[in-house]
Amino acid sequence: MEIYEKISNSLKSVKEHCPLVHHITNYVTTNICADVTLAIGASPVMASAPIEVADMLKLSSALVLNIGTCTPESIKAMLIAGKTANENNIPIVLDPVGVGATPFRYESVMKLLDQLKITVIKGNLSEIKCIAGLNTKSRGVDSVDLDDHSPGIATKLATQLDCIIAITGKEDIISDGDHTYILDNGHILLTKITGTGCMTSSLIGSFLGANKNTLISAIAGISTMSIAGEIASKRMNKLDGSGSFKRYLMDAIYNMDSDTLTKEMNIQHV
Amino acid sequence: MEIYEKISNSLKSVKEHCPLVHHITNYVTTNICADVTLAIGASPVMASAPIEVADMLKLSSALVLNIGTCTPESIKAMLIAGKTANENNIPIVLDPVGVGATPFRYESVMKLLDQLKITVIKGNLSEIKCIAGLNTKSRGVDSVDLDDHSPGIATKLATQLDCIIAITGKEDIISDGDHTYILDNGHILLTKITGTGCMTSSLIGSFLGANKNTLISAIAGISTMSIAGEIASKRMNKLDGSGSFKRYLMDAIYNMDSDTLTKEMNIQHV
Amino acid sequence: MEIYEKISNSLKSVKEHCPLVHHITNYVTTNICADVTLAIGASPVMASAPIEVADMLKLSSALVLNIGTCTPESIKAMLIAGKTANENNIPIVLDPVGVGATPFRYESVMKLLDQLKITVIKGNLSEIKCIAGLNTKSRGVDSVDLDDHSPGIATKLATQLDCIIAITGKEDIISDGDHTYILDNGHILLTKITGTGCMTSSLIGSFLGANKNTLISAIAGISTMSIAGEIASKRMNKLDGSGSFKRYLMDAIYNMDSDTLTKEMNIQHV
Repeated sequence: MEIYEKISNSLKSVKEHCPLVHHITNYVTTNICADVTLAIGASPVMASAPIEVADMLKLSSALVLNIGTCTPESIKAMLIAGKTANENNIPIVLDPVGVGATPFRYESVMKLLDQLKITVIKGNLSEIKCIAGLNTKSRGVDSVDLDDHSPGIATKLATQLDCIIAITGKEDIISDGDHTYILDNGHILLTKITGTGCMTSSLIGSFLGANKNTLISAIAGISTMSIAGEIASKRMNKLDGSGSFKRYLMDAIYNMDSDTLTKEMNIQHV
Repeated sequence: MEIYEKISNSLKSVKEHCPLVHHITNYVTTNICADVTLAIGASPVMASAPIEVADMLKLSSALVLNIGTCTPESIKAMLIAGKTANENNIPIVLDPVGVGATPFRYESVMKLLDQLKITVIKGNLSEIKCIAGLNTKSRGVDSVDLDDHSPGIATKLATQLDCIIAITGKEDIISDGDHTYILDNGHILLTKITGTGCMTSSLIGSFLGANKNTLISAIAGISTMSIAGEIASKRMNKLDGSGSFKRYLMDAIYNMDSDTLTKEMNIQHV
Repeated sequence: MEIYEKISNSLKSVKEHCPLVHHITNYVTTNICADVTLAIGASPVMASAPIEVADMLKLSSALVLNIGTCTPESIKAMLIAGKTANENNIPIVLDPVGVGATPFRYESVMKLLDQLKITVIKGNLSEIKCIAGLNTKSRGVDSVDLDDHSPGIATKLATQLDCIIAITGKEDIISDGDHTYILDNGHILLTKITGTGCMTSSLIGSFLGANKNTLISAIAGISTMSIAGEIASKRMNKLDGSGSFKRYLMDAIYNMDSDTLTKEMNIQHV
């Protein structure tokens, strides 16, 4: 099947090109996001001062914007970096963490979507619904389960915003408007450590930085995290908990290869 | 003994209700504080922009204020969030990290105590003495050993501020003014990694978010950390050091159950 | 050989004096920098608000300045803290992360060098060349390999700035202008996790805080990291990756003793 070959090649491309991935992100998960970027074979840079983001961006191959602990200052930096990215055809991942939780987050995301051309938006169902203007009850940065309407929401929003929409959850939905896929990998332990969502955005950014195909990059980034979660869960011993899982997860991402990724991937076109 | 049953139930309540715990905290230990909140069964949110903390707070069940890397801006956010917490009967933990180290920290903590009703103050003996107006020689954010006067200091300050005072150290003292307990659990390795104090505040916040009894919540939070430290220390092998201990500690918190917590707890009423 | 004895004593001195090491650093690696400072036997403090850095600095024995995620505000704090350090004869380590990547970083570092007396500058070859006014093509915060001209660059810049210059890479060059050493320890895995460079600066700061000999402190700090990397690499098992290496590395630093350090050190005077 053609898609497996594309996914396989996309990982090889990351390791070959080692793209520099610029993050403007929250201060909770910065370290593990930098680590996961290195683990997959890319290179992270985390500058976020408005005064220098445009200069740093010009050296980069992808931009990751994450509003987890956003401030007016960091949104300003995101807009400057995003415009530079658009001008230089550098792809942008947007992780709208908890967009529905506060008016400030909602207005900030609307501003980013209004002023920037985003390549991939990755969020949980609450966050994507909120962006789509649908009612949702957000509880902080938590998610809700997918439902039968979710693929339709992804497809419609992808068409409307002309970008890739990725809804992550127990299953993941990824759509470019024309093609919509459901991924069924992952493990419950991925919800027991902080930042697996943020790390997934870093992985998508890493794939985007080395590949032209944006749909494949989103699928590959999300699958890498989900399948690494499955692999990591198999190493868990009796006394192990979330601390050990975090280590095993990073190990599994570091050791991920094209064969494992495509062999373990459970993907379906809808 | 009645207290053991209360402690036991308090942990079950955290896992049942999964309270959202809002942190305005330092940027050194944010990640492990978020991880420990997940590990005990609660859910963390770390927003700290003054513009959105009130909105975020309204979704939360507890607030943790930690001045480890405070700035005028973060103190402003703490005051806004704290007032919203008070108005909505949301409990507040204050961790006055290094309050005696600089005038800015001292004045900031005095402002917080003046304008907010704090539920639990958790600090080492230097920090609590400083708040109580007693002479102390603070050295950065380090602690000093407890002495015979410590229970009296805790009891008096708890009465004066009408809150729970928790003094952590080799032994821990927890008082609501009427009842004062000494906990004798823990392990020296807990002082060899960063953030065990901050994580303890996150644990107290997690218990407070799911339980009405504030004294029990403080005891349960501190005991969870101390006993997890003991459990973690037993997994240490020859080549292991502080890196391994950190992993084992998070594992032990993740696996903590009511039986272990109450069985291992070494508590004494004074 | 005399230098081995000096190195050996310098580690003992850290463990004996437990110096307080003040960091004004990036938000990506703060946690592991604090952990590594504890692991070697020193004590970290990370305050960075301009309003309090001078007060905090007065309690400290060394200052680490790292521009990894610098802002105009953090540079302001570095200048205040640095001047206090100079007035009180407290040694300063400068880690000019990605100094060549943006004009803001370059100008900030020039300002720091102009207004402060720095004790040790530690950077990769790109960064040191940039400070020396030599052409270099920086790519974000990445490094380039050393070449035959590198010892000369270190020696010349050390003389010019009257400080220790440490160029880290596959091999490390350390010079005070009069004496120049090449260290040949380390492991490729040290480049696969975030922050080994930042942690090295924290280690140099820890040694400086407990020792008067600045050249020996720089050598000891860098060697500790490189040799710990070698030790950590030997624990790697089949399923292990960068997550496990990070743990083993911290363990190895925690367990480092004078005998291991001097026995494993591969040092050469040039």
